[in-house]
Amino acid sequence: LSVSIAVDAMGGDHAPGVVVRGAVRAAQEFSDLELVLVGPEGEVRRALDETGWRGDSIRIQDAPEVIGMGESPIEALRKKRRSSIAVALANVQQGAARAFVSAGNTGACVAAAQLLLRPLEGVKRPGILVTITAGEKPFCVCDVGANIQPRPEHLAQYGVMSSVFTRKVLGVPEPNVGLLNVGEEEAKGNDLVKTARSLCETALSGTSNSRFHGYIEGDELFSGICDVVVCDGFSGNVLLKVSEGLAERLSKLIGEALMGSVKRAAADPVLAGQLASLVKGTLGELRSTIDYSEFGGAPLLGVDGTVIIAHGRSDPNAIFNALRVARRMVETNVNAEISERLAR
Amino acid sequence: LSVSIAVDAMGGDHAPGVVVRGAVRAAQEFSDLELVLVGPEGEVRRALDETGWRGDSIRIQDAPEVIGMGESPIEALRKKRRSSIAVALANVQQGAARAFVSAGNTGACVAAAQLLLRPLEGVKRPGILVTITAGEKPFCVCDVGANIQPRPEHLAQYGVMSSVFTRKVLGVPEPNVGLLNVGEEEAKGNDLVKTARSLCETALSGTSNSRFHGYIEGDELFSGICDVVVCDGFSGNVLLKVSEGLAERLSKLIGEALMGSVKRAAADPVLAGQLASLVKGTLGELRSTIDYSEFGGAPLLGVDGTVIIAHGRSDPNAIFNALRVARRMVETNVNAEISERLAR
Repeated sequence: LSVSIAVDAMGGDHAPGVVVRGAVRAAQEFSDLELVLVGPEGEVRRALDETGWRGDSIRIQDAPEVIGMGESPIEALRKKRRSSIAVALANVQQGAARAFVSAGNTGACVAAAQLLLRPLEGVKRPGILVTITAGEKPFCVCDVGANIQPRPEHLAQYGVMSSVFTRKVLGVPEPNVGLLNVGEEEAKGNDLVKTARSLCETALSGTSNSRFHGYIEGDELFSGICDVVVCDGFSGNVLLKVSEGLAERLSKLIGEALMGSVKRAAADPVLAGQLASLVKGTLGELRSTIDYSEFGGAPLLGVDGTVIIAHGRSDPNAIFNALRVARRMVETNVNAEISERLAR
Repeated sequence: LSVSIAVDAMGGDHAPGVVVRGAVRAAQEFSDLELVLVGPEGEVRRALDETGWRGDSIRIQDAPEVIGMGESPIEALRKKRRSSIAVALANVQQGAARAFVSAGNTGACVAAAQLLLRPLEGVKRPGILVTITAGEKPFCVCDVGANIQPRPEHLAQYGVMSSVFTRKVLGVPEPNVGLLNVGEEEAKGNDLVKTARSLCETALSGTSNSRFHGYIEGDELFSGICDVVVCDGFSGNVLLKVSEGLAERLSKLIGEALMGSVKRAAADPVLAGQLASLVKGTLGELRSTIDYSEFGGAPLLGVDGTVIIAHGRSDPNAIFNALRVARRMVETNVNAEISERLAR
């Protein structure tokens, strides 16, 4: 049985080249994939030809328009009816593809998915999940921006959807789900989390498929206690972007500190060379640890179809990982189990 | 003219020793300081004697009870009427001291300050400001947890109060104030920030003492664009704690990566020695960059008195810095200018 995925070939900072190379790698690795690269036909064709790909599991579908990373999502979708995002998602809407992957404008992908795809049965509001890898072990955050002002029941549903995702896709046997708060005592928090707490408890406990940890604070996220943390999309977005901004800044600081030492050791060329290679290795390790795109992009959970939004800065490896995760979500029937859990 | 500061001698993980040593350093450095160390008299006396201090600008005031770091603030304040926090703050309430400094239970300090001190004239709700030093340049965040569900006008007041603080205490000539959001376009955000935006604009523009940047996202904070970012206490707390947790985790990761290299270089003792000193230097630099306690603790802005809450892990240097900032706030009349700006 094959898994068909519609790929926005024009998404991200280095499209279509990076996207097409990632797609070709996925097609080489997984023989059951059928990929549709969606974008301006000539441009995508040239990018595909450049890879030397000769197989028949990748085809190109023309979409003449492109939504830029900085465009206002709703306006862009209204004006550009034949954008690569809209045309690719229409494949999922019509059943011609099971999944959609894009490294493009996140807002436009989320808005288009909500316009074109039905909500998954039982789901009130979709949420974006990201996996942050910098902790003692990776943890997932849901939502990071699809739902800025959620109701308490949305947070409980995010807990269920995220626990299904982490169990089936990341292989965590019994995901421990925390509710983001400013303290761990019962009395802490805003009205949203105080109401959401018991709803999460009910939705996540009493099954062997998930656990509810209770409240968790921002600094504890990185200590490996929880596999999932749920929160409103405003806080989740702050959490994600602060992590990205700080990690980038610290990488730079560390690089500068280390390079300063390399320069001071320049009188001894052997030592300087060894230090320089050490610096390079450490920074590379650090970057791959903090780069969440390594973990396969961000699924939009709760729509009837598999939707993965990769980082705009994705390289071919990140695109490959997004396709790998999309394939895995389809094969393991994540959506069917979400609907089943929520129907209880 | 002297500046009198009441110090909670029992606050923090290593009280009273660390607090007393920081206080002695401040008394040595600033001849205009008059410090009152508040705590169980015998214990504080012994700690002071251990420093060898012989001056007359430090006195001890007995407070037999101590509120622990993990205690529930309101309950602890009700049960322990003679806690070091309550007794020290009573000095400010009664005009015997101008400022209060504690490295103790943050919630108890905030609650006690709100109970005992009047709000500053014109201020609707106090807010906690922290300075984060990891960016291209330091930036201040207000609020980080005193006001979990603010109204839009509170955020505008935080902008004004923080800009007075950064100008007078940190010496930023015309602080640029941003409003934390999930994007920079006008249409983005929850109801709170959408309403707060124009209030901030009105409160911060049209004066040479501050500027309003508009919305700012979490990752941009570290690029040095804004001197101040205002936000609800929930998001601000997430921002602060995620920064602390991630910075600590990355320090650990980098330390491990570098120590691994040291071990691999063990066959060459000169290289290994150089690497080890490099590791130490880099990590030390990193830690002092990310440690916000270096910047003098967190003022609770908007109460009639100067209140500074230092980190529970403060060392004598951090206590010294908190006292230095408290003194500076008093000397530069931060509160008078806040009231004047808000009265306009």
